[in-house]
Amino acid sequence: MLHGRGGFHLVMLTFHDCAPCLVRQALDAARMATPDEQVQEKVLRKVLAAFSEVSFMQYPARLSYLAHSIVKQETSCPDPYRRLKQYFNKAAHRLYPSLKHLVSVSANRLEVAVKLAIAGNIIDFAIRDLETVNKTIEDTIQKPFTVNYFQDFEDVIKKSGKILYIGDNAGETFFDRILIEEFPAEKFSYAVKGGPIINDATEEDATFAGLVELVEVVNTGSDTPGTLLDLCSPEFQEKFNQADLIIAKGQANYETLQFCGKDIFFLLRVKCPVIARDTGHPIGSIILQYKRG
Amino acid sequence: MLHGRGGFHLVMLTFHDCAPCLVRQALDAARMATPDEQVQEKVLRKVLAAFSEVSFMQYPARLSYLAHSIVKQETSCPDPYRRLKQYFNKAAHRLYPSLKHLVSVSANRLEVAVKLAIAGNIIDFAIRDLETVNKTIEDTIQKPFTVNYFQDFEDVIKKSGKILYIGDNAGETFFDRILIEEFPAEKFSYAVKGGPIINDATEEDATFAGLVELVEVVNTGSDTPGTLLDLCSPEFQEKFNQADLIIAKGQANYETLQFCGKDIFFLLRVKCPVIARDTGHPIGSIILQYKRG
Repeated sequence: MLHGRGGFHLVMLTFHDCAPCLVRQALDAARMATPDEQVQEKVLRKVLAAFSEVSFMQYPARLSYLAHSIVKQETSCPDPYRRLKQYFNKAAHRLYPSLKHLVSVSANRLEVAVKLAIAGNIIDFAIRDLETVNKTIEDTIQKPFTVNYFQDFEDVIKKSGKILYIGDNAGETFFDRILIEEFPAEKFSYAVKGGPIINDATEEDATFAGLVELVEVVNTGSDTPGTLLDLCSPEFQEKFNQADLIIAKGQANYETLQFCGKDIFFLLRVKCPVIARDTGHPIGSIILQYKRG
Repeated sequence: MLHGRGGFHLVMLTFHDCAPCLVRQALDAARMATPDEQVQEKVLRKVLAAFSEVSFMQYPARLSYLAHSIVKQETSCPDPYRRLKQYFNKAAHRLYPSLKHLVSVSANRLEVAVKLAIAGNIIDFAIRDLETVNKTIEDTIQKPFTVNYFQDFEDVIKKSGKILYIGDNAGETFFDRILIEEFPAEKFSYAVKGGPIINDATEEDATFAGLVELVEVVNTGSDTPGTLLDLCSPEFQEKFNQADLIIAKGQANYETLQFCGKDIFFLLRVKCPVIARDTGHPIGSIILQYKRG
């Protein structure tokens, strides 16, 4: 029913695993938001209590939204990941010239650009030191796609008029820019979140990555993880509906847009056991999936 | 106040991290106990609810006990880890001859035996394939002790009359046997849990490891993780009090016996961030600590 190959049972199982992971994430966020341990504890208890009663028949992104709303409310911090996003932005900014060079010397520019865009999706895991970053990028470029609709990707983009590219994290924005720069920019709109949520890109991050000068940047009008269309602004919904093609980055967009009914490419690397089970592909897999509307 | 170098604040922080980890563990245990996903979900919700209200001014072992009591009650399975323990037992049984050989060819038999006993403490993480097991053992033997009271260990055991060796996991029992076999066995009693809890050793496991023929095996009269003395039987408490020396294996015993007031050696490898913070030593550290009563 939700994001499922196995239907109801699989979906429920799937989410059970998300609960402790999201509690952990909320605690991490609370610690970034405030040094006050009593407030951190209040966040922890509220998230535990909320999850003990919440319906599991929802996308994990909604549960994540619930957890992070508690963090924001209890800590009075609207953007716990702000410093982290700035760090990712700066690191990706420094990488950008060498990534452009990598594309320019490639036999197949577009393939490398797509893979870089996917590598960018796990850059939040990898940006610790330059060595790990380079290893991640190299690994992603050398690995074959696990799910490979590359030829369709090239063909469909050529034929499509209006393309809505839905970004994911701050910093990853630079990697998205590299991919978009391989096409006529006027076809593309780039979507970011309407407000801060986890380390997701907002308009500020798109601006920092130079995307605003390159393409039309729109925001979802919503600060949920992924793209929960019913919570997006009417303007964004219209933009989404009018697009000939959607390109969606990352796990949360994969979860939430599986059944959106549009022609859509998903670009992601499998980061967690739940998505591994859902996609049927192991952690680390490079996915370029095409779903027709 | 609890297991703390930093007092109240550190302890509270410490436990916050345990909450999502124990929720995760309870879910794993529920899945081992029953294939019924609705029951698994009930366990998950009950543990989340319990943790949202529980006092954090307790040892993590008590919270773990609470979580696993919910698992046992809701699944009607008294021993979810039974098959896993049998697997660990058999794997350690197969290893035993080669470990004995390793000790016999060593320049310092006792040092290798102590290190093997510590390696055995993480065997539940490592027993997947023979290669990982051998790597773990080799790694532990080659690494220097991070906290090194080896000389005291040798001296104090020589001088002590009655030694109570408190075991930890099933399978690890074989590694404990190797260490005990380096001393006159009549000095030693070996303590196991009074009932099944996680993958901790019970009398059945001590029997399988041949410890019953070697030393007096006693049980704590309690099925809590670690050694929560107030929940142990009067017989065990007396045994504990009469011992000249305690040897305690693993993290949970380290947590719960830090302030027991007895002469005690802790043998453990640091497995998690909470114990890393508490001991001040990174994950993977090999600890042979001595605390005088």
